[in-house]
Amino acid sequence: MTDQLELPEAVDEDNRTSLSRRRFFATSAGLAGAVVAGRASAESLADVPPREDGADLSGHSERSQYVKIARVPEAGPGKRNVDPSDAINSKAPLDKLFGGITPTDLHYERSHSGAPDLDPAKHRLLVHGMVQKPLVFNVEDLKAMPSISRVVFIECTGNGWENWKKADENLTVQHTHGLVSTNEWTGVPLKFLIDLVGKGRESHWMLAEGGDAAAVARSIPLTEEILNEAFIAYGQNGEPLRPAHGFPIRLVMPGFEGNLNIKWLRRLKFGDQPWMTRWETARYTQLQANGKATQFQLRMETNSVITSPSGTMVIKPGYRRISGLAWSGHGKIARVEISTDGAKTWKEAQLTQPALPKAQVRFQIDWTWDGKPTKIASRSTDDKGNVQPDRQTFIAAMGTNALFHYNAQQTWSIDETGRVRNVLA
Amino acid sequence: MTDQLELPEAVDEDNRTSLSRRRFFATSAGLAGAVVAGRASAESLADVPPREDGADLSGHSERSQYVKIARVPEAGPGKRNVDPSDAINSKAPLDKLFGGITPTDLHYERSHSGAPDLDPAKHRLLVHGMVQKPLVFNVEDLKAMPSISRVVFIECTGNGWENWKKADENLTVQHTHGLVSTNEWTGVPLKFLIDLVGKGRESHWMLAEGGDAAAVARSIPLTEEILNEAFIAYGQNGEPLRPAHGFPIRLVMPGFEGNLNIKWLRRLKFGDQPWMTRWETARYTQLQANGKATQFQLRMETNSVITSPSGTMVIKPGYRRISGLAWSGHGKIARVEISTDGAKTWKEAQLTQPALPKAQVRFQIDWTWDGKPTKIASRSTDDKGNVQPDRQTFIAAMGTNALFHYNAQQTWSIDETGRVRNVLA
Repeated sequence: MTDQLELPEAVDEDNRTSLSRRRFFATSAGLAGAVVAGRASAESLADVPPREDGADLSGHSERSQYVKIARVPEAGPGKRNVDPSDAINSKAPLDKLFGGITPTDLHYERSHSGAPDLDPAKHRLLVHGMVQKPLVFNVEDLKAMPSISRVVFIECTGNGWENWKKADENLTVQHTHGLVSTNEWTGVPLKFLIDLVGKGRESHWMLAEGGDAAAVARSIPLTEEILNEAFIAYGQNGEPLRPAHGFPIRLVMPGFEGNLNIKWLRRLKFGDQPWMTRWETARYTQLQANGKATQFQLRMETNSVITSPSGTMVIKPGYRRISGLAWSGHGKIARVEISTDGAKTWKEAQLTQPALPKAQVRFQIDWTWDGKPTKIASRSTDDKGNVQPDRQTFIAAMGTNALFHYNAQQTWSIDETGRVRNVLA
Repeated sequence: MTDQLELPEAVDEDNRTSLSRRRFFATSAGLAGAVVAGRASAESLADVPPREDGADLSGHSERSQYVKIARVPEAGPGKRNVDPSDAINSKAPLDKLFGGITPTDLHYERSHSGAPDLDPAKHRLLVHGMVQKPLVFNVEDLKAMPSISRVVFIECTGNGWENWKKADENLTVQHTHGLVSTNEWTGVPLKFLIDLVGKGRESHWMLAEGGDAAAVARSIPLTEEILNEAFIAYGQNGEPLRPAHGFPIRLVMPGFEGNLNIKWLRRLKFGDQPWMTRWETARYTQLQANGKATQFQLRMETNSVITSPSGTMVIKPGYRRISGLAWSGHGKIARVEISTDGAKTWKEAQLTQPALPKAQVRFQIDWTWDGKPTKIASRSTDDKGNVQPDRQTFIAAMGTNALFHYNAQQTWSIDETGRVRNVLA
């Protein structure tokens, strides 16, 4: 049980690359907002502020007074700065986040009649329809069952819609891509509940209905993938769901449209065909270029976006790490490529490991900006071979009538002053 | 880009095990606190509460009014319900958490002079000592460098000390084991900074000093493992560090004593021997059974604890999932075994995958309690072959003089009324 560390062997400094040093110093004058890393007088703490006394320990660790970070409620594409009662979604500040996990209180929010705070002691889940034994569960029932925990992204099918028809050059990445987030969710596998009620052999569809006033309800095809992966969650980043995210229980459908991840879940009904609720006949259909509408386009696409530098930032010439997020409803991100010359050439970025399936993964690459106007973009590829399309290819296939599933490559332009703008290509 | 889902093939229900159904229903009367899952009248929502209107969307998703969850500040072993100004640690509510990630505001807190909220614009990190070029960095410098993100546990070296000499049977798992938490941390690899300053060939030690009034400072041996894994973090679960966790920057030392993960980091100094600060000569030494003191016992041990059922809970006979957390400073958890008969026999639990190295992993196993008094315990084994010792073995090796690195198996006793108590074995 004792584990006395041995003193390290002499490390061969000569074998250590000095690439990072050359790269950093050659260009440190360009660090955004940086007081240039300076040579210190050895042994001196003259440049370091004095120590500070601290606050008492408490029951919760709140944010620093110096950290201003919040979502942006909006009323739809182009409808910003609205009255809160008109807001239909609230976007995650992707430009201010690190790593892959989204802070729980900043996970994007989308709802059709606000976020109710349901009493968990009274809440019930009805599981019925074409089953051998319809059942009603309370929340404690569900918590007593075997559980899984999984880090997955959830994405509103409207994420990216801001740029479908035109681009407002003053948008941040929070505005263009803030309807996607990644949390660790914990709950009961759908399969466990299906075993309990004895789903009929012919029940290939499941209706999932929420307990919000809008009663969002979607028909979900019970593919093997969905049967294996869907779960009824009561935990989010280690704690009970927050009301905005479906407290006390929600459906989690890894890789599929956000609106299928039914919040405030009150009912699962099994049947042999879809119910054609208004959510799938009226709202979540896709008007194609040829005038026909597509229904049940449920999987979220291979996607990525550079979050730094991104819209409205101002950068300086020199070294700058490019960083961003990639995700795919098909599986794992296998590769992200970056162009810093307007999509002429592409270089492969590093991915933070482990890159989990159906989760956002952080990518980064070194870059030295020469101070000339240019455009930067990212392009992701998943482990099923799906490649994020450029805008021209995307529009050629999908037209401009639809609102959902926009996953074209995001381009940021940088002018000679270093100002970063949202553009179409 | 369209991805029309095919209707699923008929699923062979006959091949689906009904084990879960039998297991669950045979014993559902015993579900803790459960209104027994009842047969529903098909098509009826009579048992499900009506829909509710919701609150407006906002900039942050706060917790439900029904969720009461907080850390417990304490003044040391056995010193509970103290004045906040006397608290030295604040423990995570492990009995109320799900999955592997600890909520950011509930990550355990331990500090020696409270938690200062330092101004990130003024903060500096001095890197000096036996280096070619001493340097001072500001926080923006660090954020512009290549980064890594990693999910790791941090554990106070005093975690478990409550049970070293005796056991208070009224303690919860928050009291016995709440000084460990797991977050996703993001920051700059130590190696990158070392390359920048040009660490001398003979610099095998590093002093890391915090900017709190106590100026906690520790000498860290630069083993290959530490050189490869340590990093200077500015991000925590996707957002900037919180003041209690070192804002704006802290050292993260995966697998090593919590106090080495220096918060409010202001200085890294390189040298050829340890500095023998008071933190390593007076506080964080281990008084052995033979009266000698061990210094630099830095790695956190292979550990685990059952979080449900756990201290002060009351359970009913019947089916009940046993769930808990395991972790090891040596690497990945390879196996967790559970005994429900006072350590006579052991069964292997399921681990939530992926089990990440030096991160807490969730384990669970099915159990049916027959209503007779018994004792339950967990025993973890990591991928280096380290096995969590039973209490007798631990005490035989370590004696009862020391305060730190207690990792004996945790036993909960259950009496005939279902009351769960903290006991020594």
